[in-house]
Amino acid sequence: MTDEYRYQQLEGWLLKGILDQRWRLGERLPSIRTLCAEQKLSKATVQHALQRLEAQGLIEARPKAGYFVSLQPDGVKKPVSRARIEAPRPVNVSDLLLDIMGRSAAFDLLPDLHRGDLPPGIVTLNRSIGRALRRQKGEDSQYYDKPAGFVGLREQLALHHARRGWAVSPEQLCITSGCQHALFLALMASCERGDVVAVESPGFYGVLQLLEQLGLKAVEVPTSLETGMDMDSLEEVLERWKVRACIVSPSFSTPGGALMPEPDKKRLLSLAERHDLAVIEDDIYGDTALGRSPDPLKALDGEDRVILCSSFSKSLSRDLRLGWISGARWHDRILHLKLVTQLASSRYLQQGVADYMADGSFTSHLRRQRHELSANRDRLIASLHTWPGEVRVSTPQGGLTVWVELPETVDTLAAYTNALKHGIIITPGPLFSVSGQFENCVRISFAHPWNESRMDALRQLPGLLHIE
Amino acid sequence: MTDEYRYQQLEGWLLKGILDQRWRLGERLPSIRTLCAEQKLSKATVQHALQRLEAQGLIEARPKAGYFVSLQPDGVKKPVSRARIEAPRPVNVSDLLLDIMGRSAAFDLLPDLHRGDLPPGIVTLNRSIGRALRRQKGEDSQYYDKPAGFVGLREQLALHHARRGWAVSPEQLCITSGCQHALFLALMASCERGDVVAVESPGFYGVLQLLEQLGLKAVEVPTSLETGMDMDSLEEVLERWKVRACIVSPSFSTPGGALMPEPDKKRLLSLAERHDLAVIEDDIYGDTALGRSPDPLKALDGEDRVILCSSFSKSLSRDLRLGWISGARWHDRILHLKLVTQLASSRYLQQGVADYMADGSFTSHLRRQRHELSANRDRLIASLHTWPGEVRVSTPQGGLTVWVELPETVDTLAAYTNALKHGIIITPGPLFSVSGQFENCVRISFAHPWNESRMDALRQLPGLLHIE
Repeated sequence: MTDEYRYQQLEGWLLKGILDQRWRLGERLPSIRTLCAEQKLSKATVQHALQRLEAQGLIEARPKAGYFVSLQPDGVKKPVSRARIEAPRPVNVSDLLLDIMGRSAAFDLLPDLHRGDLPPGIVTLNRSIGRALRRQKGEDSQYYDKPAGFVGLREQLALHHARRGWAVSPEQLCITSGCQHALFLALMASCERGDVVAVESPGFYGVLQLLEQLGLKAVEVPTSLETGMDMDSLEEVLERWKVRACIVSPSFSTPGGALMPEPDKKRLLSLAERHDLAVIEDDIYGDTALGRSPDPLKALDGEDRVILCSSFSKSLSRDLRLGWISGARWHDRILHLKLVTQLASSRYLQQGVADYMADGSFTSHLRRQRHELSANRDRLIASLHTWPGEVRVSTPQGGLTVWVELPETVDTLAAYTNALKHGIIITPGPLFSVSGQFENCVRISFAHPWNESRMDALRQLPGLLHIE
Repeated sequence: MTDEYRYQQLEGWLLKGILDQRWRLGERLPSIRTLCAEQKLSKATVQHALQRLEAQGLIEARPKAGYFVSLQPDGVKKPVSRARIEAPRPVNVSDLLLDIMGRSAAFDLLPDLHRGDLPPGIVTLNRSIGRALRRQKGEDSQYYDKPAGFVGLREQLALHHARRGWAVSPEQLCITSGCQHALFLALMASCERGDVVAVESPGFYGVLQLLEQLGLKAVEVPTSLETGMDMDSLEEVLERWKVRACIVSPSFSTPGGALMPEPDKKRLLSLAERHDLAVIEDDIYGDTALGRSPDPLKALDGEDRVILCSSFSKSLSRDLRLGWISGARWHDRILHLKLVTQLASSRYLQQGVADYMADGSFTSHLRRQRHELSANRDRLIASLHTWPGEVRVSTPQGGLTVWVELPETVDTLAAYTNALKHGIIITPGPLFSVSGQFENCVRISFAHPWNESRMDALRQLPGLLHIE
């Protein structure tokens, strides 16, 4: 273990203690001597870690007394701005937003960087895929896979979902080219051109683009950064307009990482029944829980009207291009659409992933990733607290991003262009709304480790956003 | 070399000689003694080969005189039935046809068989992909590929097309999940719900299904089994109805393997200009030429209105799920649609295929495959000549299938169900038309080697089709 690694470990441990309120605002941290003894570290290493926390404004040194906590997590201000309910409208995404969407998919302030180590989970995954390739026999390469996908992978996915509270059979699953492809199939199967679809606001920009391309109208439903889509608002929307489908992410919606409480889920399903809605559940973040994994909404679906869409892109690899869909009453039509628009998925790739799941590698990977994401999130939130001015931050229990609300004078779209000149990508608020709301908000990801380059970029942001 | 292999080689050599008319109808083949000496084979091996040709009805033994050719290739009767021109109509594909489509994608009389050897080209391909997986570095797995796809693969494809007479830059290409996905993007980008699309008849059933799903109307244009879509008929159709797009396969259309002559290509482009058509070129069989590879229609496109769609599925592997599209004036919209419906393709997979192309493996594979397909086709046609009754067969110069026209009393849809009970898949004619034409026609593939099981299945077909 290098020294660099040791001070980072201590820094992370202290940061967690502060966020967990083990040491509260104004309280004294353990002395340097105590930390050296308890953590078995050199004095230089301990001092290095403390100085870094001090530089981030999280603790302060008082002469001859030691280090004191200068930030209190309770002081984290939650975002307050709320979407307005407006009439359904066709979606019209500008070229700028399209450009941002492409770049923002990297979830990284510095997407040109990606020079870290290959995560151990991916090394194992690639080995499984390589084995599946070598095991390919006969004329397998001369046949298309079945439209529903490789049954071995669907069996593993069924087991995986069973552990997350949803009993599903492999026959109810269809493999897709990622979650976006699954959402596309769900909308193609359940809606017709001109139909109105209720979406979260702020919500996932990829959905808005899909609605535009399919000629569907969007009605935005105000969405809490803690509990997800607001059910009172949804009820109001459903009473005012004829809505065909509703797209929600009950388990950690983007951008804020909200988790929908069980009573809201039940209310959503009863509203769906009353208004004959298709409910499209985007479960792509379901496996990114920092605490206990939540059951999907689909587990409560007694009416066969929840279409679950998910993929491995956020939990394992964005380069796999493998997702899945369970299409409820629309499942046959979805299978047909998959066949007609794409014929099949790659069989050896599905076999490799199935093996990776079957031998427990995926579960180990998720466990390891949970620790890393937890540390990344804490570090990001702590850093955001040092920003000047009124900065409000969501505190997600899952997902890969926080939503940051800045003073109303901030124009994050202008800041996007500004930051891009410095090679930094931010994801401005208006991307998450059909109506250009949330101009003063920005989504920041904690998907990637906070190495020195990314910390530097993060420190530059207040300046680039003009909130100094 | 095993004995089994030796007699097959001799059999293939003799068959080719008969089809090439080296020995004409009624002429005597070289004697057994001559064949033994010239081919350096045992008498038993030579006899075995001759007896097999005799059993297929290609030669006959005359006592004390030797073997004589009993089939003359000039006697091959060409199919004569022609599609009718009918008004554009919405496509309505039955469940039976959908079922057949799924099974027919295997291009195999015995799709449950696939137990042959892994073709050498695929062994090399899988090694290239395995290497790309192992070379994956940094956080690559945590990033989506660009919507247009990996530039290294697009460069190789540009080189590959340049060799086939079409100068294209990598920027004009976008990687897709196979050719069906490319056709889908092309139709989404160039047409709107309710538009009329001109299609080949008989033509590719996958296109008809796409039209159905996208709510487009089809108008069928009679298509020759030798020269492709009939230009007089297309002109008539364009004058009678407002047509938005035209889908053609100038290089070896399915089912018959027609090759469109250059004057027809030029006429098609001038009709497209006069009637402001989008021309969607399905080039998936472009690399399956048994002789010289033809230039694509796209090479003549001076008006930027030919969208070329292709993939590796017919030329290399159906399990890759990699295709490409060059979208002409619709290219930006196609890139947008790819992003919105699927985000990206798998990067390591594209890298593996790019390496495979760069080191010449793809070219070697195509050369080897050309010889195999040529032999498979000759063997199939020879076998079809032994069928009783009036049987007419196309003689494709590329593609993977022949079109067989049977006596008018034959009902190939009924025969499909009948054959399925014996584990044999035939592809009935009505699958290739919106209006249920070609009831007495069937497509038979020569994509797979004629081993004993497949030869057995082929011998059973006249009985199953009730033409005995």
